[in-house]
Amino acid sequence: MSGKSGSDKHKAILLVCDGLGDRPSVDGKTPLQAAYTPNLDELSEAGINGLMDVISPGIVPGSDTAHLSLFGYDPYTYYPGRGVFEALGADMDLHKRDVAFRANFATVDENMRVIDRRAGRKGSKELAEALNGLEIDGVTISMENTTEHRCAVVMRGKHLSRYVSDVDTHEAGDFVQECKPLKDGEAERKTATIVNKFVEKSYELLNDHPVNEERRQKGELPANIILLRGAGSYEKITSIKERFGFSAACVAGASLYKGVAKYLGMDIIPVEGATGRADTNLENKAEAALHALEEYDFVFVHVKDIDNNGHDGNYEGKKNIIAKIDKELVARLKDADAYIAVTGDHSTPVSIKRHSSDPVPLLIKGEGVRTDDVNKFDEISVSSGGLCRIKGIDLMPILADFMGYYTMYGT
Amino acid sequence: MSGKSGSDKHKAILLVCDGLGDRPSVDGKTPLQAAYTPNLDELSEAGINGLMDVISPGIVPGSDTAHLSLFGYDPYTYYPGRGVFEALGADMDLHKRDVAFRANFATVDENMRVIDRRAGRKGSKELAEALNGLEIDGVTISMENTTEHRCAVVMRGKHLSRYVSDVDTHEAGDFVQECKPLKDGEAERKTATIVNKFVEKSYELLNDHPVNEERRQKGELPANIILLRGAGSYEKITSIKERFGFSAACVAGASLYKGVAKYLGMDIIPVEGATGRADTNLENKAEAALHALEEYDFVFVHVKDIDNNGHDGNYEGKKNIIAKIDKELVARLKDADAYIAVTGDHSTPVSIKRHSSDPVPLLIKGEGVRTDDVNKFDEISVSSGGLCRIKGIDLMPILADFMGYYTMYGT
Repeated sequence: MSGKSGSDKHKAILLVCDGLGDRPSVDGKTPLQAAYTPNLDELSEAGINGLMDVISPGIVPGSDTAHLSLFGYDPYTYYPGRGVFEALGADMDLHKRDVAFRANFATVDENMRVIDRRAGRKGSKELAEALNGLEIDGVTISMENTTEHRCAVVMRGKHLSRYVSDVDTHEAGDFVQECKPLKDGEAERKTATIVNKFVEKSYELLNDHPVNEERRQKGELPANIILLRGAGSYEKITSIKERFGFSAACVAGASLYKGVAKYLGMDIIPVEGATGRADTNLENKAEAALHALEEYDFVFVHVKDIDNNGHDGNYEGKKNIIAKIDKELVARLKDADAYIAVTGDHSTPVSIKRHSSDPVPLLIKGEGVRTDDVNKFDEISVSSGGLCRIKGIDLMPILADFMGYYTMYGT
Repeated sequence: MSGKSGSDKHKAILLVCDGLGDRPSVDGKTPLQAAYTPNLDELSEAGINGLMDVISPGIVPGSDTAHLSLFGYDPYTYYPGRGVFEALGADMDLHKRDVAFRANFATVDENMRVIDRRAGRKGSKELAEALNGLEIDGVTISMENTTEHRCAVVMRGKHLSRYVSDVDTHEAGDFVQECKPLKDGEAERKTATIVNKFVEKSYELLNDHPVNEERRQKGELPANIILLRGAGSYEKITSIKERFGFSAACVAGASLYKGVAKYLGMDIIPVEGATGRADTNLENKAEAALHALEEYDFVFVHVKDIDNNGHDGNYEGKKNIIAKIDKELVARLKDADAYIAVTGDHSTPVSIKRHSSDPVPLLIKGEGVRTDDVNKFDEISVSSGGLCRIKGIDLMPILADFMGYYTMYGT
């Protein structure tokens, strides 16, 4: 038997700092240890702290699988493939069994050798429009240019499969890869064929397109091919509202996180100046989050740029952006009338410039939370906190119980 | 391959303090932090400490599922439904596939509106006897009045199912609910029909019963209907003795816990004055446990009243009963020649008056246990202990290994 509490509901903010975790590398300190973070430390002192393996110890999370786990969805069950999140994040319409891809405008020479897999980091709405709506072998292809060179591509038709290989070479200098079926099945062969035809067609339609002629004249790289990767297959899943009983909203700049949030049924709050880059407007994000909290029970706030500095191996950069987030975002959120949880989706140590499985720090502050002796929010200090070490998948049930949305198992 | 140790067997006591865990609410302290508990603190100092998620982080345990987990039985596999424990706790005979219910004497008016779902908290052996042995559609119904208004009901016959809804309204003022099949099946429909007929029959036989006429004359509420809930289906499962290799006994007052213990093959030690209420005789319980320890390898001791104070939101009451248990029970058990583990089955914070998923404190004291720096047994102090944070299902294997009853996995 189960029961829902009838009253005493509370709200919550979950702030996810992308790539927050790190390893000690300068003066034996992590960037988070070294950063000036009075607001995070205040939350840490008032709340309960611990370490969190976002997926499982030793498992290096991608940003997409990490976020599924953080929201209580086991990625081994619920991960639809990255392309689905890109398409949802680009606000594209998805139907059941549509196959979606993450895609790039790229520059190739006439031998299909990749000159720049990001086409000088510059896309074009007009070029995307030239490909949007193509039909190949009875399958309709939609395409959107999202930010810079990035695109999302959706294929709709019968018997498609997400189990096809990437066309993207992932390295300049290589030749464009042939898309291959990853399983021995009719749908996989059909999908791979359509992908290959689409890539070919994209070169045909883009290479001599006036937009590219103009780019060449200005000395810019032409965006003369589309490289696809990360095929995903869409299916509607049980939403956060259906699973936990509360309404949820997302405040994020980068489209991947908006895509994950949409997949889980959150509403996306538009924020002026939220770009997912270093220039993102943190004050606007804070205001948007606080405003959303009036209407929604749960607000997910995502900040991206910490991770970018990790990937760049930029210790000072990572330290500074953490301090900036503390000052411009955390300071505004910390006194909200809500539970607040702060964590990362994974570690991105500057020393190795990639995601790692090092657990991320986590704090939860709010009414009735058991406090501990931790008064500094960093990877080392929190390890002696009252949460000990939990898994990412457990975070939402813990928050839901604090918020008063719980189901008792048994009687 | 597996092996059993041939000698060096030890005994163990597991003391489960129902609803022990809490949240800081008065002067920033939990009732356990605030209570004077020199004996628990002595065990804490001499032993190893930690936090335990009885089922899983964020999962709010019922008392029944919590105890299965504490004894090493995954409730998601082994939970038979609450009614089975009630019937076993009432010492009723159960056969395979019998369907058992938790039931209440209640008071209804002539329109079947519930006046008091506990019939003034007063039952009657004679009224129970009037219903015991009824046969409906080839199904025999047994009934016992356990404590106060509480009863257990067992149905025996072909093709019965536990997947039927509760008749109990859970709220006074509501009308008696019709029992409905929870699955679309013959057995479910049949069981629901029999339950409805039984409830009707109970009103027929009880409403004008002389016992109730007498109650009315004394101005008491008549116990004129039986409300059923928590259907369970019995099947014998692997006992603790079969699983772990040691004999086990239960010292408890409240019938649910005796029922769980019987289900797992423990022997129930009768204890004079063990009531499961505030007036329970803790000294007798301690004596019974120490006495049982002479005959049995493992003794489970359960104390209930801490939880009741949590549900009542009574901070001082909870604090005081903890201190009383420390003085009258723990003081007597602490020097037994046995491992001793002390924990809760779940948290019942006085601030929210319900079970919560906050992990419970756990200590284990005994020969060779790794000690830690914790010297105070409470939810906050133990979080830095040597056990870190474990799950309830892991407790029994840990104790079994200390006791010398282990199975090596591999060679």
